[in-house]
Amino acid sequence: MSLEWIRGPCPTASAAHRASAQARQKQLTKPLGSLGLLEAVVIELAALQRTEAPVLRRAPIIIFAGDHGVTAQGVSAYPADVTVQMLRNFASGGAAISVLARELGSTLEIVDVGTFALDRIPGVTVDKPRCGTRDFSQVAALTPAEVEFALECGRRAVARQAGMVPHIVILGEMGIGNTAAASAIASALLACPPEEITGSGCGIDAGGVARKARVIAAALERHHLKGARAEDVLAAVGGLEIIALIGAMITAAQFGIPVLVDGFIVSVAALAATRLNAACRDWMLFSHRSAERGHGLLLDALGARPILNLDLRLGEGSGAALALPTLRLACALHNGMATFAEAAVSQRSA
Amino acid sequence: MSLEWIRGPCPTASAAHRASAQARQKQLTKPLGSLGLLEAVVIELAALQRTEAPVLRRAPIIIFAGDHGVTAQGVSAYPADVTVQMLRNFASGGAAISVLARELGSTLEIVDVGTFALDRIPGVTVDKPRCGTRDFSQVAALTPAEVEFALECGRRAVARQAGMVPHIVILGEMGIGNTAAASAIASALLACPPEEITGSGCGIDAGGVARKARVIAAALERHHLKGARAEDVLAAVGGLEIIALIGAMITAAQFGIPVLVDGFIVSVAALAATRLNAACRDWMLFSHRSAERGHGLLLDALGARPILNLDLRLGEGSGAALALPTLRLACALHNGMATFAEAAVSQRSA
Repeated sequence: MSLEWIRGPCPTASAAHRASAQARQKQLTKPLGSLGLLEAVVIELAALQRTEAPVLRRAPIIIFAGDHGVTAQGVSAYPADVTVQMLRNFASGGAAISVLARELGSTLEIVDVGTFALDRIPGVTVDKPRCGTRDFSQVAALTPAEVEFALECGRRAVARQAGMVPHIVILGEMGIGNTAAASAIASALLACPPEEITGSGCGIDAGGVARKARVIAAALERHHLKGARAEDVLAAVGGLEIIALIGAMITAAQFGIPVLVDGFIVSVAALAATRLNAACRDWMLFSHRSAERGHGLLLDALGARPILNLDLRLGEGSGAALALPTLRLACALHNGMATFAEAAVSQRSA
Repeated sequence: MSLEWIRGPCPTASAAHRASAQARQKQLTKPLGSLGLLEAVVIELAALQRTEAPVLRRAPIIIFAGDHGVTAQGVSAYPADVTVQMLRNFASGGAAISVLARELGSTLEIVDVGTFALDRIPGVTVDKPRCGTRDFSQVAALTPAEVEFALECGRRAVARQAGMVPHIVILGEMGIGNTAAASAIASALLACPPEEITGSGCGIDAGGVARKARVIAAALERHHLKGARAEDVLAAVGGLEIIALIGAMITAAQFGIPVLVDGFIVSVAALAATRLNAACRDWMLFSHRSAERGHGLLLDALGARPILNLDLRLGEGSGAALALPTLRLACALHNGMATFAEAAVSQRSA
């Protein structure tokens, strides 16, 4: 790949601020460890934000949308038209992520990195190398130049947000057929049989899942993806929105902005991002464990323990948005609780 | 028991509003079921609130505090003084639940239903039959009259909130030693060996857990609690704050106010409440699965699937408060998303 920035360094978390946050957690008026996973997350956030008082107030949401040639193979429960229809719904405020963005006070940017849309949609940023990927069951989904364009699209989207100095960025996706592309990428990167990672996506039945897994298995074979490099996997079976997510995640890490990772698709992008630039992993927080079959495998591969486990499978960044308030409360607790000394409360006897 | 109100009827959820909420979920621009557990919760909330548009805006928090004679047996990691010290911390705003109440915009009422405190603490409501329970390893913790007083204390606390017409009430507790009392109650009600349900509470070690389980086992034997009625179990090994929670839950259900159940202790109260008045179960929503060993057994017995699973073990209603924003977002999604028709989005092909 000719994009040198992809391999560029990411800032490291501050060990001093991590230690300071750990010490503060020991002094707060509660048994140590009694806030469970939230204590670990807030300590890491303090280290990433290099602060005594981590906050998640400014949390912009970016959604990348793309279409998939492989939908011609009947791998989705919804017609491909729905991607563009949903772009309009995002922009006009009726989609789940639109509602969540309003409730959370987050800005919402919708980026068309490769849908089949031919005309402009008000409220949607267009930054695409082509309309939809090619059908990966027949040919390579993308050329290397298209992969690079999509990575840079992700970089541009994060750069546009950087001026507001976000405390975290929420990344999401939309694209009918993209669980097929994501499952193919995950299957190749994890060297795992497609049938173990392929799920029902937006709701195909068991027969449909089996067909989808067969389409993926044949594609992995056709494109010689066994043991292939991440960039070759992405060109062969990738989706433009998935690749944009990768570029966005690596850029956020390089800019020192934590990323709140959504569900299956975004986790596949996260895995691919770590293959291109291992240092970006430190900047990822994981929001939820989805109902999609392969998500557990991915989370294990990423060493991630997410906040929510609600059988969500909507995408759009919705799971990340749903987890944000809990993380905000974790920050408020860390910053706002009294210490044992301040409150004159006795510490444990032993 | 002479308290007739305990057995009094609870309003039933509205089947018509449940059906209407289910129908709306099918029309929202997302795959049906893709919001997982949140869809089920919001549908039930619509049925309980008898509304097309469920909301959780007004969510008062009530904390009941009590002390436990059994702490003399060394069943807790903290000295009993901490209960009263924490009352001051709740009232002065430094405790976890104080921070959460501020962030959520909730009122916080602290009720001393039986701590060892002898003097008044500013900001704390005193409504107690005695200071601390008796040591249940030696004698019955409470008289039947004291049990009834504590049940009525819970009723009075909910009645005080009823005027503001809460959309839900969050109940919590504080009391050094109360996981011992709660484990004893749960063990008796579930006919389950104490060692299967007894955990580390606020953080005793493995030896301490074993000792705590032995103290409980001996008490169950001494008080003949095998197959005993709930009211007899509560008098023998109960805690005043646990009993107040029971009275509060039954009252909330009778008043048609949903309850957001916190962790282990509140779940024990929930189980006991259903034994006294089975109809109150419908009014309970469950916030989280705690790290306390016996919580899973209790949730199974109650047929509950909670929202969060974060290894919390703090009490104070903190887990319920942490789950509230996710539930509020579930309501916002239900009420605010566009339908397929409104957004001109195609439904699934099959």
